[in-house]
Amino acid sequence: MQTLQTTSLRVAGNQLFILDQQALPQEKRWLDASTVEALVGHIHALRVRGAPLIGLSASLLLALLAEAGKSRDELALALDTLRASRPTAVNLMNNLDRMKQALWQEDFVPALSAEALRLIDEDKQLCDAIARAGSELVKPGSRLLTHCNTGGLATAGVGTALGVIAVAHQQGKIANVWVDETRPLLQGGRLTAWELGELGVPYQLITDSMAASLMAKGLVDAVWVGADRIAANGDVANKIGTYQLAVNAMHHGVRFMVVAPSSTIDLSVDSGEDIPLEERDGRELLEIEGRRIAPDVDAYNPVFDVTPADLIDVIVTEKGIVERPDAAKMAQLMCRKRLH
Amino acid sequence: MQTLQTTSLRVAGNQLFILDQQALPQEKRWLDASTVEALVGHIHALRVRGAPLIGLSASLLLALLAEAGKSRDELALALDTLRASRPTAVNLMNNLDRMKQALWQEDFVPALSAEALRLIDEDKQLCDAIARAGSELVKPGSRLLTHCNTGGLATAGVGTALGVIAVAHQQGKIANVWVDETRPLLQGGRLTAWELGELGVPYQLITDSMAASLMAKGLVDAVWVGADRIAANGDVANKIGTYQLAVNAMHHGVRFMVVAPSSTIDLSVDSGEDIPLEERDGRELLEIEGRRIAPDVDAYNPVFDVTPADLIDVIVTEKGIVERPDAAKMAQLMCRKRLH
Repeated sequence: MQTLQTTSLRVAGNQLFILDQQALPQEKRWLDASTVEALVGHIHALRVRGAPLIGLSASLLLALLAEAGKSRDELALALDTLRASRPTAVNLMNNLDRMKQALWQEDFVPALSAEALRLIDEDKQLCDAIARAGSELVKPGSRLLTHCNTGGLATAGVGTALGVIAVAHQQGKIANVWVDETRPLLQGGRLTAWELGELGVPYQLITDSMAASLMAKGLVDAVWVGADRIAANGDVANKIGTYQLAVNAMHHGVRFMVVAPSSTIDLSVDSGEDIPLEERDGRELLEIEGRRIAPDVDAYNPVFDVTPADLIDVIVTEKGIVERPDAAKMAQLMCRKRLH
Repeated sequence: MQTLQTTSLRVAGNQLFILDQQALPQEKRWLDASTVEALVGHIHALRVRGAPLIGLSASLLLALLAEAGKSRDELALALDTLRASRPTAVNLMNNLDRMKQALWQEDFVPALSAEALRLIDEDKQLCDAIARAGSELVKPGSRLLTHCNTGGLATAGVGTALGVIAVAHQQGKIANVWVDETRPLLQGGRLTAWELGELGVPYQLITDSMAASLMAKGLVDAVWVGADRIAANGDVANKIGTYQLAVNAMHHGVRFMVVAPSSTIDLSVDSGEDIPLEERDGRELLEIEGRRIAPDVDAYNPVFDVTPADLIDVIVTEKGIVERPDAAKMAQLMCRKRLH
């Protein structure tokens, strides 16, 4: 496969490398991810993360394994293993469903490579289309709040919610971005802060517990977040803490905006109740950077939550926007063509 | 002065020692706090913390300095310096106002000692009275959620909100306590988790971003928190994140309970808007245990917020409880005698 480079994925010498998102921002470390075991390990440890990026990394690896001579059966097994590596983000499943179709073509080696590169290219275009559509909803002088990381690290392009913010910043409309640090793994404090710094966007880091207080003081104009899966009725599964923000946004009359490619919308699940929500090891709460921060106790670590559609003002996709989402509007959206 | 020992204060050999609350739970380290400079340093660094405890430690130090031969003028200056060491918790000011009265008595050395010991003794009794009154409001099988630390570490007695939980546990009524880790300084994860472990109360640690999600799942019966200052209308200033919990409790129909001695009620401030809220160095968000967890960025660090009275179900004090607090009920409460 040709050499390829995104913010956090690299193909060189027929090997896949990932930018270790657990080492950022202290260290910019590229790790080999050229076997299924290695990539699944990176995905489990969140060294590769972000709903779109997980799917793209798995697709690239399959293509590289095919080029290296793996049989169709071996690739089918690899695909299933990768597909099961994280349960909530549906982009992984969607991307691998497309890779599976390529796998059953007669000439599956070039088909898989072409499909993986097409997914990468599409993701970049999706990000651009989404960012343009979303940025139209950002008013000049906006003080926006975001949670987790939805930028260039999480996608092959400019990102989803953070892509909107990046484009709105280019348009001169961002006064400040409040960055939730996003416990337990601090994707906001480590990754979003780093990306906004690189982009030159003005921002301030806050703890996840401060958002309501800022809203009460009138310092937040809108909340912009990504999504790991969106149900047919518009309910949104996303990083733990998203729901709490949505409740507080509603209480304070602050707009709550969700940004995701339409591949995040899963019409096969009726509502958020049916979305499988990953729980992770409670030890993620007990240590930071290898240092103990709590006694050796039982910790509860659900890493996603569901925000009901009725707390959401707008869902922005590459097919356009849905205001006050419901099942009918979501179904209608899926039939639209991509924006240009 | 006689030898004295509480969970986190010690007088021995006419010196004051404090249990370093930044070193817990990894290390149980007692630090000398026998000068104004030393104690103010400990208060600023939150090595001594908890609204009641700050006031008690300052009062004990004044008494010890008087016994060591300091003049009335020197003590008056020391008192003013200690009084200004933290702006939000009103117990510090209240305790030192009582010490000031003792200072102007002719025989001020024994008067200061007697007053400091009386404050310690009163705090223990207050905690007991509050815990009994509060525990009557806890239903059998309760799953409670608490924020920050309000236990034996923060007072001379069993604590405020955590005292209620401790007594309710003795009564066999606690099924589980959800402990907010309480960023940025992790008083929940480090201190409350440690205290509940010592008391044998069943609990699970969570991040501050998980509370709403637990409430939506029906896993929280009530939220119990302390207070740093309560305005005349019942608005409550407390650790950052308290307000966010209150908004979420209201949204989910979960009871929201505030526990504090009546000395926390400041009738001189009409509403929460008039309570001075401390902001601390943003670097508290950037490092944990000396390890960098974010780029070197601008972080916003308001350490308290205000919960309006209309989000509060009950305020529990040693004078009894106030349901759905307002100015008239708060004034009435202050005229009551202490419960027995």
